[in-house]
Amino acid sequence: MLSVEQLVTLFEHFRKANSFQGKVAELYQPASYLMDLGGKRLRPVFTLAAHQLFEDQIDSSLAGALAIEVFHNFSLMHDDIMDQSPLRRGQPTVHIRYDTNAAILSGDWMFVHTYELLSRYEPVLAYDLIQLMNQTAVQVCEGQQRDINFEKMDRVNEMDYLEMIRDKTAVLLGAAAQMGARIASATKDDQENLYTMGLHTGLAFQLIDDYLDVYGVQTGKKSGGDIRQNKKTILYIKTMERASEADREELLSLYQEDEPDKITRVVRLFDKYEAGDYLRQLTLEYSQQATAALNQVNVDPGRKINLISLLNELLNRNK
Amino acid sequence: MLSVEQLVTLFEHFRKANSFQGKVAELYQPASYLMDLGGKRLRPVFTLAAHQLFEDQIDSSLAGALAIEVFHNFSLMHDDIMDQSPLRRGQPTVHIRYDTNAAILSGDWMFVHTYELLSRYEPVLAYDLIQLMNQTAVQVCEGQQRDINFEKMDRVNEMDYLEMIRDKTAVLLGAAAQMGARIASATKDDQENLYTMGLHTGLAFQLIDDYLDVYGVQTGKKSGGDIRQNKKTILYIKTMERASEADREELLSLYQEDEPDKITRVVRLFDKYEAGDYLRQLTLEYSQQATAALNQVNVDPGRKINLISLLNELLNRNK
Repeated sequence: MLSVEQLVTLFEHFRKANSFQGKVAELYQPASYLMDLGGKRLRPVFTLAAHQLFEDQIDSSLAGALAIEVFHNFSLMHDDIMDQSPLRRGQPTVHIRYDTNAAILSGDWMFVHTYELLSRYEPVLAYDLIQLMNQTAVQVCEGQQRDINFEKMDRVNEMDYLEMIRDKTAVLLGAAAQMGARIASATKDDQENLYTMGLHTGLAFQLIDDYLDVYGVQTGKKSGGDIRQNKKTILYIKTMERASEADREELLSLYQEDEPDKITRVVRLFDKYEAGDYLRQLTLEYSQQATAALNQVNVDPGRKINLISLLNELLNRNK
Repeated sequence: MLSVEQLVTLFEHFRKANSFQGKVAELYQPASYLMDLGGKRLRPVFTLAAHQLFEDQIDSSLAGALAIEVFHNFSLMHDDIMDQSPLRRGQPTVHIRYDTNAAILSGDWMFVHTYELLSRYEPVLAYDLIQLMNQTAVQVCEGQQRDINFEKMDRVNEMDYLEMIRDKTAVLLGAAAQMGARIASATKDDQENLYTMGLHTGLAFQLIDDYLDVYGVQTGKKSGGDIRQNKKTILYIKTMERASEADREELLSLYQEDEPDKITRVVRLFDKYEAGDYLRQLTLEYSQQATAALNQVNVDPGRKINLISLLNELLNRNK
């Protein structure tokens, strides 16, 4: 059985052997640039590791794993334009390094390429994978739209926020894991359990991100970026929900200004209402649901070692 | 047999019965806005008319026809951002009416929706239609990239220009016609002939656009828009190719300025080198190839009446 590291190596080998090319180089360069910036390759690893639960020979999942990673990078490319983000993985984003038109068009091509990769499978399998991709892609678009909508709203409730991160981030991890199971011809139940595992891992993962942005040991990123950008994470939402009227008004007004002590004062309010504890509890629940779903998968427990240690690593990270 | 007008009505009825909706209204409104601006519905009519060559009951082609039209509108939405076009069909473009982010994201959703519509077919048919869509979508992206590249070049040769309009415009008409034939379970040969018919119609159609922009009776659009925007159409390319060194330098310098008499002086050069005649000859050749391909289709000539009159109308228009 391949370790997580070996799965990443296998994937990277396949990715490089399937580099982007075509008749008009300018269309493919920005896509290659973004893919070459790296990243944890979490989604393709989920696909390959899910496949490996069922059999040792997992090469047939590589095209699906690449499709998922290409789709993920497409969504990053377009989101970075919309969010006006200058940096991605410490390097200039595509619309900065090239230009906005390149980021729009090369992103569009990556979207097509997702479907080209899925069309490499035989028709019935390809059909199932494409249905999964369609449903996921609609949700990812809806999630991004929800996120944009939230920027214009003073109040967001917890349920709406959780739906947003589910759609924008978590469903793709669910789809990644389910895809590996489907390619391995797993039962419907096992496919669904792996989807649930990925989905809840994705939710917990995003919540951990939100937590670490405020409370984490800093690693290059400036602390409190979410607060500086007035992001309505669970920390903000729970504080607004629990706060006295005076504190609520203070938080609202802090989120409308840019004073030097903004972050300190916002964190003081988060702390007063124990929003961090609430967030950690919520994260723990999603983590447990992810693990429970993996436990449900009907294969020898020994085959799950890889995914168990991967979930542990992801869900207990502190940076 | 349904007339072209009846095909449009059938399509519009289906389109309205399949209006865009989902959980996040802001994602769907810009897409509906653009689709509701209308247009000739040429591509879906090609799909339906191609199907009708083979059988009377053509309802099964409606989802494919809508997929093609949704894809077309997706590409318009993103192209209008890239080209900074303020108007589309006399109304504000999506990035003007809403904003650029809406045009990016709602366009992305339309792209997914194209594949959702094609996934309504049974797996083997859906697979073929998706392959056709993938190949077409890659070409459309490449065509748009070529067009962007041309803006930065002084010289473009005729072959490059024709490849650009083939990819950016004509292949989608080819795919539209082939799709109707495939859904009707036509033979490979008939599918290919209908693709060729659509492709050459698309090429001729675009060349007629280029001609009428300079020489047409004006209908609302200001004459010579392509010249004002320094577009390197066949008229420009052929003049550059045929002109004396002095005239070539004049044309080059006219294309770098914005004098009040620019259009008159450019047209004088086009006329001097009979670029208009060359363009009309080229258009005629593509038109004849389109008709020849339709002639090859192995069905009773009586069934071709609709498509023949549609081609005649498209290829002999003067506005």
